[in-house]
Amino acid sequence: MIGKVFLVGAGPGAPDLLTLRAAEILQRADVVLHDALVDSRTLALAARARRIPVGKRSGRVSTAQKFINKRLVDAARTHRVVVRLKGGDPMLFGRAQEEIDALRSAGIDVEIVPGVTAASAAASEIGVSLTRRGLARHVALVTPRAADGERGNDWAASVLAADTAVIYMGARLAEMISAELMKRGKSPRTPVAIVESASLPGRRVFLGKLADLPRLAAQTGDGPAVVLVGEVLKEAARERGAVSASSVEPLLRQA
Amino acid sequence: MIGKVFLVGAGPGAPDLLTLRAAEILQRADVVLHDALVDSRTLALAARARRIPVGKRSGRVSTAQKFINKRLVDAARTHRVVVRLKGGDPMLFGRAQEEIDALRSAGIDVEIVPGVTAASAAASEIGVSLTRRGLARHVALVTPRAADGERGNDWAASVLAADTAVIYMGARLAEMISAELMKRGKSPRTPVAIVESASLPGRRVFLGKLADLPRLAAQTGDGPAVVLVGEVLKEAARERGAVSASSVEPLLRQA
Repeated sequence: MIGKVFLVGAGPGAPDLLTLRAAEILQRADVVLHDALVDSRTLALAARARRIPVGKRSGRVSTAQKFINKRLVDAARTHRVVVRLKGGDPMLFGRAQEEIDALRSAGIDVEIVPGVTAASAAASEIGVSLTRRGLARHVALVTPRAADGERGNDWAASVLAADTAVIYMGARLAEMISAELMKRGKSPRTPVAIVESASLPGRRVFLGKLADLPRLAAQTGDGPAVVLVGEVLKEAARERGAVSASSVEPLLRQA
Repeated sequence: MIGKVFLVGAGPGAPDLLTLRAAEILQRADVVLHDALVDSRTLALAARARRIPVGKRSGRVSTAQKFINKRLVDAARTHRVVVRLKGGDPMLFGRAQEEIDALRSAGIDVEIVPGVTAASAAASEIGVSLTRRGLARHVALVTPRAADGERGNDWAASVLAADTAVIYMGARLAEMISAELMKRGKSPRTPVAIVESASLPGRRVFLGKLADLPRLAAQTGDGPAVVLVGEVLKEAARERGAVSASSVEPLLRQA
């Protein structure tokens, strides 16, 4: 049997920020290989499926990518509906290409189901649009992390060229990010935010200036966190409180 | 009565790429002010609501932003659950800030529900990850469109600094985009794609080189289209066909 693999975005964290399509595919799944951060209520939708955690959680041991690729190929050879469930959107910082390429090489059909990415969830959480007429027309989504042996990653050039930047997996590198951007001419007073665990009950927002970024990051916990940089955040501190994110009770339909 | 306004992302187009939370809020809505491009099956979820189209469709007459802001405030003064339904994600190229600010000024509570943005849907459609280990670590989301009287918008600087760029509302400006990027040193052979009506039945993908962009754009129709630029697209043309997007039947639960 040759099954089909669905690379599915689980969204930023809250189970009800899953798409209707993702929920439907999970309900039909025979096997689900999932990131460690996917919510248990999301996984519960895959009632029929064998559920296999395959990493990745920042700072902890995770399954090697090659081994994940192999497990996906093996799963598609023994099951009809295979889901690879990733946090956020699969096509942004999800290493999806390596999995797509491995499956293609093995002659296995792949379908991608996009999800809500962390940048969108973080912006919703703060109540600040990443673009703003007359002020912000370009958004950079970057990560300063590089794999071992990876060639130059000039993430800072992208941040400097953009009006607004969202730095994925940035909180643990706050000191380096702050120093590098200031060294290259970004004002120490540029407004910044760290959003931790966006959309989840334990979410926290830290607002400040670029020079304060290491101090803000020191207050964050274990949750996934993105760093936002840009003038759009200027009035966020003052106006916060008027906007509430996620007061709606999660209404996840159980499988 | 003072109601609450939900700024909700409807996602890229397919009704089943709505989030579970958005679907639930639509079902509770008393009034829905929606973009012209939102699918009728999505609007049908708001069975109890009065549904009011308020623009915006590229190239056609649309409701002035100030008037939309006023209607939102008025709606919140007469209804409990007011939904402002926008294509894609509200916080990316959605003019959400103007609506948030107007509502805040009127003392009205606002909640943002993020959605799947066009960049994610386009990448899923082509089967190409926007980031790729060792090749693409920064993604720029830009629009070259500027409002009347808006100050300089150097969208090209962001595109040039990023490994991958997604140009929203870019297809109609293809000639200018291609010329400007080549003038500023981008190779005419840089791989590009135009994705029209991502996730919808009439979707089309056009692949080529930066120098061909105007020719590709001339083949597009009326649907919303994004332009993608970057080396990650290099093998898309050759490998296309192995990845299928959206073969799952939409399974939208009707309200």
